[in-house]
Amino acid sequence: MSIRVGVYGYGNLGRGVIKAARATNDMEVVAVFTRRDPKSLIVEGVNVYHVDEALKMTDDIDVMVLCGGSATDLPTQTVELSKYFNVIDSFDTHAKIPEHFESVNKNLLESQHTGMISVGWDPGLFSINRLMAESILPKGNTYTFWGKGVSQGHSDAIRRIEGVLDAKQYTCPVDEALERVRNAENPQLTTREKHRRECFVVAREDADKEAIERAIKTMPNYFADYDTTVTFVTQNQLDENYQGYPHGGFVIRSGLTDSNNQVMEFSLKLDSNPEFTASVIVAYARAVAKMYEKGEFGCQTVFDVPLKYLSENSYSDIVKRLL
Amino acid sequence: MSIRVGVYGYGNLGRGVIKAARATNDMEVVAVFTRRDPKSLIVEGVNVYHVDEALKMTDDIDVMVLCGGSATDLPTQTVELSKYFNVIDSFDTHAKIPEHFESVNKNLLESQHTGMISVGWDPGLFSINRLMAESILPKGNTYTFWGKGVSQGHSDAIRRIEGVLDAKQYTCPVDEALERVRNAENPQLTTREKHRRECFVVAREDADKEAIERAIKTMPNYFADYDTTVTFVTQNQLDENYQGYPHGGFVIRSGLTDSNNQVMEFSLKLDSNPEFTASVIVAYARAVAKMYEKGEFGCQTVFDVPLKYLSENSYSDIVKRLL
Repeated sequence: MSIRVGVYGYGNLGRGVIKAARATNDMEVVAVFTRRDPKSLIVEGVNVYHVDEALKMTDDIDVMVLCGGSATDLPTQTVELSKYFNVIDSFDTHAKIPEHFESVNKNLLESQHTGMISVGWDPGLFSINRLMAESILPKGNTYTFWGKGVSQGHSDAIRRIEGVLDAKQYTCPVDEALERVRNAENPQLTTREKHRRECFVVAREDADKEAIERAIKTMPNYFADYDTTVTFVTQNQLDENYQGYPHGGFVIRSGLTDSNNQVMEFSLKLDSNPEFTASVIVAYARAVAKMYEKGEFGCQTVFDVPLKYLSENSYSDIVKRLL
Repeated sequence: MSIRVGVYGYGNLGRGVIKAARATNDMEVVAVFTRRDPKSLIVEGVNVYHVDEALKMTDDIDVMVLCGGSATDLPTQTVELSKYFNVIDSFDTHAKIPEHFESVNKNLLESQHTGMISVGWDPGLFSINRLMAESILPKGNTYTFWGKGVSQGHSDAIRRIEGVLDAKQYTCPVDEALERVRNAENPQLTTREKHRRECFVVAREDADKEAIERAIKTMPNYFADYDTTVTFVTQNQLDENYQGYPHGGFVIRSGLTDSNNQVMEFSLKLDSNPEFTASVIVAYARAVAKMYEKGEFGCQTVFDVPLKYLSENSYSDIVKRLL
């Protein structure tokens, strides 16, 4: 029998979850929940409901996938729905993960359900690689680089500047730093030495471009600590040459055993960040369903999951074919 | 209290296990077992026993690490010792893993112990990455490349040729193939297109070098299907320029979500293959001890382990610091 998935929130991530579940043989999305008028939303092959109807469907959904944002949606939605459902989310406000964990865990233990928070690639796959690498090579340094990829938050920050009509910001790892890390030099790297930022900006015709460029490059936290390039483009150029949500990154551990250098590296090169994140979530939603069946209630993270639970295939098959 | 480790077999891997355990804060090697006269072996800070004495020490050892070879040692040693100890090995004869699993599992279940087989980097970390990648991206292809690194089996095969005094063989991934895979071309690659073989050979002074080179390049299974280069060197050159046991490799999954390419890559660049393998085994020996404490008896693989068990740190620490 298929694992029945509910999608709570229908943005880029929610659409990705539907596609990712369709690529499996053992999972199906049976309901999409939206805050809009459900009649205004047509999703091929899936019934759409208003979020207020979710609680009537506790018997119809094995795992509810929360597809909202970390800033305001997930801290309330995952916590609330964990009173009634097995849940999974991609909560990525790093400093608040322990607090979010506690709130979700409390409700899941009371309702005897299983949930998993902070699933995706970072937090998620990158976290796994950081943990494995430092456990295997206790003497060493771990480096995380992000990009090349679109940062939504930084693009938004540029769009709020007076005179800016549209913008897209790419975070790029500094190649030289990557090479030094790979060569086991174990460098101490500043923020500026690790990443640079490329901004593509559509300005109003009468705007002061020099002022915009200055405003971007001196913006604290977002840009001031980075080497930043600003390129003005037309809306057409932006739409044509800078479409989509590519992303990626690198986790590298450079360690020492006795006097030998050992370098472990995990990397992603993604043409669609939301679709890949959704694919990770769907694989871990399978694990949530399996852990629930085994009575492992409460809040989990990617650190708790025996990796066999990610697969739709049998244990004997994966041992024979992949071990 | 420390996890007390026994090392069964004192070659490169056994020495690596002692070093790797020393790099932790929660594990210690308390005994080395050898088939030699134990008096002939001095290991700093560790007592050395004859293998026949192992069964007297069931109360003193939490996990026995089997450090013998897959061809003849492990199929009997791991199976036999799993009647008395928690065990871990690096069994890597791929076709025989299911059979080895069954034998070890049967004894562990009877003796109420926990064991893990086929731990290292391949099988081991590479297996994990193959499993995760195909679970997350069901549509796609997984590629494993090995090297650049020393292959002991191929070096041995060369040394058996008439007129050869010594030899070292390096397996190298073909860079062009790696690039095509990384660029999501999803190529069909022949054996020859994936790897090439570099051989450094010391010949007897009166030997027929052309005959040696021909014997190497036409050797079935080992070399005939590869582009192979043979370089004759002196023993001095071999000892100075081709020392150590470097190795490494790449697991790359090139997948598709909807119409977007997504590439996942895991790679290792190791200056010492045996020391790194030992470091992986020690981290997983920690997991064996923890799973035993939880009563999870029987044979496990890397697919069964919640990754938190690899760490010597607390769950709240790893969630806060690494998630």
